[in-house]
Amino acid sequence: MIGILGAMGPQAGIDLASKIVAHTVVQSDQDHIPLVLYSDPRIPDRTAFLIDPSETNPAVAMSHHVQKMALTGVQYVGVACNTAHAPPIFEPFRASVAEASPNITLLNIIQETVTGILRHYPHVRRVGILGSRGTYEFRLYDDLLLKHDLVPIRPEETEKVVAAIYDKACGIKSFSSPVSQQARGWVLEAIDSVAGQGAEAVILGCTELPLAVPESSRNGIPLIDPAVMLARALITASAPDRLAPWSVL
Amino acid sequence: MIGILGAMGPQAGIDLASKIVAHTVVQSDQDHIPLVLYSDPRIPDRTAFLIDPSETNPAVAMSHHVQKMALTGVQYVGVACNTAHAPPIFEPFRASVAEASPNITLLNIIQETVTGILRHYPHVRRVGILGSRGTYEFRLYDDLLLKHDLVPIRPEETEKVVAAIYDKACGIKSFSSPVSQQARGWVLEAIDSVAGQGAEAVILGCTELPLAVPESSRNGIPLIDPAVMLARALITASAPDRLAPWSVL
Repeated sequence: MIGILGAMGPQAGIDLASKIVAHTVVQSDQDHIPLVLYSDPRIPDRTAFLIDPSETNPAVAMSHHVQKMALTGVQYVGVACNTAHAPPIFEPFRASVAEASPNITLLNIIQETVTGILRHYPHVRRVGILGSRGTYEFRLYDDLLLKHDLVPIRPEETEKVVAAIYDKACGIKSFSSPVSQQARGWVLEAIDSVAGQGAEAVILGCTELPLAVPESSRNGIPLIDPAVMLARALITASAPDRLAPWSVL
Repeated sequence: MIGILGAMGPQAGIDLASKIVAHTVVQSDQDHIPLVLYSDPRIPDRTAFLIDPSETNPAVAMSHHVQKMALTGVQYVGVACNTAHAPPIFEPFRASVAEASPNITLLNIIQETVTGILRHYPHVRRVGILGSRGTYEFRLYDDLLLKHDLVPIRPEETEKVVAAIYDKACGIKSFSSPVSQQARGWVLEAIDSVAGQGAEAVILGCTELPLAVPESSRNGIPLIDPAVMLARALITASAPDRLAPWSVL
């Protein structure tokens, strides 16, 4: 049974559940993989903690929620939030889950995304990264990309990506259905910025971003949705025979 | 905390979760209502049981899943499936939940839909019903509509609606993202059929149908999505101050 730790934000967890269903090959309802989405928003903001470590570490609530979810019997758990994978949050979270719920296997959206790029886009070398402030400051994707001889590229104005996610008046966290044209515009600008610097693929490295830009490419450059990579990894872990072929999607 | 009993089919439960988020007024992730989606497809087909009661009653698995979900602390539970509300399933299910999980309040998608029509469309008298074979045979909406002086209207060819949902080659249960043009065409035909008989509103009375026809009206006739009515009722039960105004949606 697959578990999704959601609520960071709520649409991101729902979106991951939807992608798991979409990437599973079935002929009837009964062929789908059992799944629990635990979406309790009483988790402190991840970026706020990364900027000011005197704030409460969201890892505490995250681990508590996984323990609640474990009562239902989930085995493979994915966290629908890139920023939550920053080491100051993810490392204590992982340690706490390992101790409290030893039967649970935690997947890592950053690792699955980089693995997915290597597998499905073997000719790509230069990779654009869009994400939250925490994603940039904690080099969430940078170091793992470099380790695999890939070159991380950032947009010139990272603050516009951050605004697209967080702005109270038009950001995706406040307005996700539909996303505002302003937020979408800022994300597209950032994609064009990394493309202008030679990016051959772009990671939409915050689970809110694909809500604003659901298309799979822009001007021929693939847009990588980490939630798709995590969804496919969760299917592979729990029911590999039902993973949809990459080419059909 | 809201609980969704999903997996009937999987996209319907996810869709209900998404509508709860969309109909909640928030300014940040933390303002959303805690929610658990329990989507385990090991529930026998609802219509198959209604047609042949010697089959296993899905109520047994449904009640078991609610008990699992109750371990996480959910209080208000909605079932994302119209057909599961047919009395031969819903009555034993409700009795079993009341006994095993007395702290849980079960909402009823049929009642919430009819209540929602009376509240938001007070001038409507003739109501079209689209749904599964079980929905028609067990008069899921008919009797409750008649009780409130509303006139239920069925499409001339109900079997095309059933095919749109169930057909193995093109039905919504097999192909939900995207839905096939054939399935969408059959649903639109049925809407036009009840409109031709004077329906002033049309209930998309199977949670798969709004996946094929997401628009809110057709030729000026409102299309009623029971999942929206259930989503709003779940918000009203758990955090009424955060229910979005009807008019903005």
